[in-house]
Amino acid sequence: MLDRFFNPSGIAVVGASDSPEKIGGKILRMLQRHGFSGGLYPVNPSRPSVGGLPAYASIDALPDPVDLALVAVPAPQVPEVLSDCATRGIPGAVVFSSGFSETGEDGRRLQQQIAEICASTGIRVSGPNAEGFYTVPTQVAATFSPGINIDALPPSDVQNCLGMVSQSGGLGFSLYSRGRRRNLAFSHIVSVGNQVDLECVDFLNYLLDQPQVKCVLMYVESLRDPQAFLRSAERAARMGKPIVMAKVGRSSAGQRAAQSHTGAIAGSVRVSDAVLDHYGVLRADDQEDMLDLATALAHQPTMRGNRVAIISTSGGSGVWLSDACEAHGFVVPPIDPERQQLLRIFIPSYGSTDNPVDITAQGADGYAQSLKVLGDADYIDAFIIAASFAHETRLNSEGEDIARAAKALGKPVLFYSYSLPSDGALNRLQELGLQCYTTITGCIRGLSALRRYELMRRDIPMRFAEPAAASKPELLDDLLETGGATLCEYEAKALLGAYGVEVPPQHLARSPSEAASVAGQLGFPVVLKIQSPDIPHKTEADGVRLGLESVAAVEEAFTSLISAAQSYAPDADVRGVLVQPMAERGVEMIAGTLQDRDFGPMVMVGMGGIYAEILDDVAIAPAPVSEATASRMIAQLKGLPILDGARGRDACDLDALARLLVALGRIAVDTRGEIQELDVNPVFLHPRGQGVTIVDALGVRRAG
Amino acid sequence: MLDRFFNPSGIAVVGASDSPEKIGGKILRMLQRHGFSGGLYPVNPSRPSVGGLPAYASIDALPDPVDLALVAVPAPQVPEVLSDCATRGIPGAVVFSSGFSETGEDGRRLQQQIAEICASTGIRVSGPNAEGFYTVPTQVAATFSPGINIDALPPSDVQNCLGMVSQSGGLGFSLYSRGRRRNLAFSHIVSVGNQVDLECVDFLNYLLDQPQVKCVLMYVESLRDPQAFLRSAERAARMGKPIVMAKVGRSSAGQRAAQSHTGAIAGSVRVSDAVLDHYGVLRADDQEDMLDLATALAHQPTMRGNRVAIISTSGGSGVWLSDACEAHGFVVPPIDPERQQLLRIFIPSYGSTDNPVDITAQGADGYAQSLKVLGDADYIDAFIIAASFAHETRLNSEGEDIARAAKALGKPVLFYSYSLPSDGALNRLQELGLQCYTTITGCIRGLSALRRYELMRRDIPMRFAEPAAASKPELLDDLLETGGATLCEYEAKALLGAYGVEVPPQHLARSPSEAASVAGQLGFPVVLKIQSPDIPHKTEADGVRLGLESVAAVEEAFTSLISAAQSYAPDADVRGVLVQPMAERGVEMIAGTLQDRDFGPMVMVGMGGIYAEILDDVAIAPAPVSEATASRMIAQLKGLPILDGARGRDACDLDALARLLVALGRIAVDTRGEIQELDVNPVFLHPRGQGVTIVDALGVRRAG
Repeated sequence: MLDRFFNPSGIAVVGASDSPEKIGGKILRMLQRHGFSGGLYPVNPSRPSVGGLPAYASIDALPDPVDLALVAVPAPQVPEVLSDCATRGIPGAVVFSSGFSETGEDGRRLQQQIAEICASTGIRVSGPNAEGFYTVPTQVAATFSPGINIDALPPSDVQNCLGMVSQSGGLGFSLYSRGRRRNLAFSHIVSVGNQVDLECVDFLNYLLDQPQVKCVLMYVESLRDPQAFLRSAERAARMGKPIVMAKVGRSSAGQRAAQSHTGAIAGSVRVSDAVLDHYGVLRADDQEDMLDLATALAHQPTMRGNRVAIISTSGGSGVWLSDACEAHGFVVPPIDPERQQLLRIFIPSYGSTDNPVDITAQGADGYAQSLKVLGDADYIDAFIIAASFAHETRLNSEGEDIARAAKALGKPVLFYSYSLPSDGALNRLQELGLQCYTTITGCIRGLSALRRYELMRRDIPMRFAEPAAASKPELLDDLLETGGATLCEYEAKALLGAYGVEVPPQHLARSPSEAASVAGQLGFPVVLKIQSPDIPHKTEADGVRLGLESVAAVEEAFTSLISAAQSYAPDADVRGVLVQPMAERGVEMIAGTLQDRDFGPMVMVGMGGIYAEILDDVAIAPAPVSEATASRMIAQLKGLPILDGARGRDACDLDALARLLVALGRIAVDTRGEIQELDVNPVFLHPRGQGVTIVDALGVRRAG
Repeated sequence: MLDRFFNPSGIAVVGASDSPEKIGGKILRMLQRHGFSGGLYPVNPSRPSVGGLPAYASIDALPDPVDLALVAVPAPQVPEVLSDCATRGIPGAVVFSSGFSETGEDGRRLQQQIAEICASTGIRVSGPNAEGFYTVPTQVAATFSPGINIDALPPSDVQNCLGMVSQSGGLGFSLYSRGRRRNLAFSHIVSVGNQVDLECVDFLNYLLDQPQVKCVLMYVESLRDPQAFLRSAERAARMGKPIVMAKVGRSSAGQRAAQSHTGAIAGSVRVSDAVLDHYGVLRADDQEDMLDLATALAHQPTMRGNRVAIISTSGGSGVWLSDACEAHGFVVPPIDPERQQLLRIFIPSYGSTDNPVDITAQGADGYAQSLKVLGDADYIDAFIIAASFAHETRLNSEGEDIARAAKALGKPVLFYSYSLPSDGALNRLQELGLQCYTTITGCIRGLSALRRYELMRRDIPMRFAEPAAASKPELLDDLLETGGATLCEYEAKALLGAYGVEVPPQHLARSPSEAASVAGQLGFPVVLKIQSPDIPHKTEADGVRLGLESVAAVEEAFTSLISAAQSYAPDADVRGVLVQPMAERGVEMIAGTLQDRDFGPMVMVGMGGIYAEILDDVAIAPAPVSEATASRMIAQLKGLPILDGARGRDACDLDALARLLVALGRIAVDTRGEIQELDVNPVFLHPRGQGVTIVDALGVRRAG
């Protein structure tokens, strides 16, 4: 359906105007200026012609069928216009008008009317409050954005296009004009507005299906259907088409503003970051950052390792780039003596034949020759060509050779100009089909994106592996049927046990003598803990007794726990007292499930105790998780050196921890509608082969 | 002296040529093109005229006195030319020629000859291997760099100039042309080359003395005289003239390259970072980063707090800027209801009167009006104006109002364009005397620099406070006179004691019975440790016995320690066995002194044990340190939450730790020539009021 939307044979402009100040005037002029070749039909009840074309009083009066209506009438008139469009059989529309959910209650009602028209008639609507779209290859400029007005170089390489989907029209189209300045070709730029019907994911899917689109850029304040987005992101990852996303509205002020701006509320930042990482979505911090990533991702081959050779005419740039490479985990290896000899033939004595190679300002033809000498070195995975393109001289003299040598390598070759390129140099780069970075930071970001994307791609089979199907344990339904705002410890542990997690022996005692008898069977010392769904935080209620060594101590502890609970929460539903053996100490960690409003069930793991405070060290992944994913989560923790047996310490049983996370993943999925969070806190890790001890656990029921 | 250097009344160009390919040709043309108004004297023995000017066969043949010689002859001829210049009374020269210390041994010898000529004649020489300088206000273009050839807008605000000192000519002059594009005015750009005589610090000092210079940019691979630099940095800090520095050559490949590039070896990265921070030098990661900082620092008033108001025409930009502000520690506070009402008068319903303020694309004159409404709000410390300058329309219509309102505030007002500015807009900004960021990241970097610089300035009295003078304890000389590659534990602790640090009682026993008798006096349990300058790492030699409870155990331990030492290192100079009480446990930390080759004596402190591994958590400052500086070092540690009594834990005795650092600072200064490192590892921190326990200490003598 979006084929006709983006390449309509006829367009009606509803609210068309001769005034260049009005949106309906700007859109018509933009379409005309870009030479739209299909039928163009201004709709305006009060004028016989607009923009030199015959105007029509209504949709009904249109003489020919059209594929797309561009609607720029006052908000209250929009529903009727769309109804007319649907009646007339127009399959798609873009609503530019503002005054909908971004303005308050009245606007929200109006937007709801549009949603109902879409649902009942099947018309597909983009917007409202949108800036439209621009189909670059066919020059359909269905937008009023001044951003595409910029004089920009024509694209040189339309086989490696970027697509752009943006919740902000201003940012989407300005990204386009910024990208054009970098000799980046675009396929489509879409401003989605309030997403009443067609939304980001619809456009993402369409762009992924376009063969010329190599990389999709997205500016997103909130995802309307996060699960649908994840399905598309997985598809993109499998296709090898990177998604570069600016996910904004992360700050409190940003969320406040996003809400007033597009009526959207952003989800949990931490979960969103983890999920996007998991799905291989590359995130960016500003527009130039997005383009830094896209420049490399759309135009460079796979980067197989992390070793970089730098070839410069400026010693300082070589040094600076080396620093930046190493600071970001790349290696700048020395050049072997044989190749250094070959380089010395054309590099003067005050230049450097070692990496970073300095061919010096006098080293004519040095770039292409260096690429030829170094190109097949098996210890180099990518090249950076650092030059000054303040003039086009060098590009004129050896540009063809450089471009040919670079493209023949099958390895990434990134260009960096330490001076701002002249217009002449930009033209020449465009003729040669080359892109050029103008900041060191940007160039390194590009390299890093290539590397991260390649590592993600290799990991796809594990990353998206479906864990083996397993049936829900019967206990789950039983637990969920009992009341209470929380699953208290004995219930949460029973749940874990039902999913195959080894939990310490536990018994819920209802009397002092029962507690004492259980303690006798378990063996002293034991621990007693009050159990009530109304007392989630037991220590606050003085609800724990540790290290009880005798029958008398246990009986006394039972009595004092019950009376402490009664004075803490007189109406609490006290289920009894849990009797357990004392846990053997281990490295303290936390694990659990959570349900994200946007992204659904999640598993988390982190360092516990003091480490949690100073490291703020948590890994999150969407549930279910495979054992491989669970292990990767653990490996992400900053506290890993405490766990992995470095420096003569015992290695912890990380396999057992991974198995716990797999079980938590199944629980997260199975309890999706019922349990908001299941916290295992703490869990003690023992040395390898000795498992983990679940010390405490708590389930929080979903409200309502 | 540098006044005549930068503004010479006459210049000799030695090696002047008519060839535009030769450096001597380029320099002459550059001077002529920029309309150098003084006497210009080409020196060339084989031609009667060069560049349309009469040429002279030698320095000797010059008809008039000149202030500056620009030397571009082959390297071997340079010393003679400089001697001739000195003889002729020319006070200064720039040597452009390459082929000196950057090329190897022969070149180093040649450079040494220049150094000797400078020393014996008093001529001041910049270079060799330099790209010269450009004095912008008087248009003296004594350089062959094509970087200043760029068509750039003329400066609008020559009262707020930047100065640039660069060890890379290419980067220095390209920074200039990048800066011009941002409407930044420059005073001087200097390429220092190999710094045989005049070096970075000489030029820095000159620039600091120019009233129009508000901020100095430096590209540095290595500081020739680090101590002199620190004196200048302190002066700059006291003057309120920020230094923005790119300190490169940090990586292994970068150091390799810096050495071949300018013959310079970079110092320790970690120490250099700490020292530059301490002196308020702002560091930058690439050229645009340098300019992001300089844009704000040279043109904005003091930022008194961290609260930012954002005023945009693009909702998306407002959201994105809010995220970036909060991610970097700024607060984006809500606007009070009264002011929101005043904003609503001109902001349409779909815009936002809360912060980030969205005046919408339709909100004409909204920027200036918003600044007027919000300018005096005492909960806002700075403003960001986010606009689209893809066209100059808005700047033409309300530019004057905006500029006037912004300049009247006395608070920073930063401009950010979410689209790339058009040439027309850049011209208009220049007329208005405004600078504009084109990336969010850059804008936030500018704000952060303002904030950090202001905090540094407030801290100056403490930061540069001289600790009270104190005489060296006599023990120091005694200790330094005894031989050995290390000061072993009992010596190092004695040294600490001599500086007033409380150390545990210790006694060096020479026999089992002496050890037993000492243990009896101290009280059991005790610890015994082997003491030998040849066994710095005692545990490797099985040289420690802990928790000895009886006379018999002590005697046996003594004997076994001596025999273990003999088998570990038969020739070791064993001084005896140290007997001490067992230390009471505390939070494990490390502290010490070190001597940096460049920056001299340093004090360090860090978390110990496992925290050291996972946090890599060390603070370093130049010695001596005041107690205030010592406390700031401790406060920088990531592990601070473990120490400061957060969450109900005991607060550690951080005052005692700070006093230890002050003592270490004195030791570092006093032992500068003698002791490379003094490690106190571990030191146990006890609860507040209970001090610290020096558990072990070791001094490493300076080699040679």
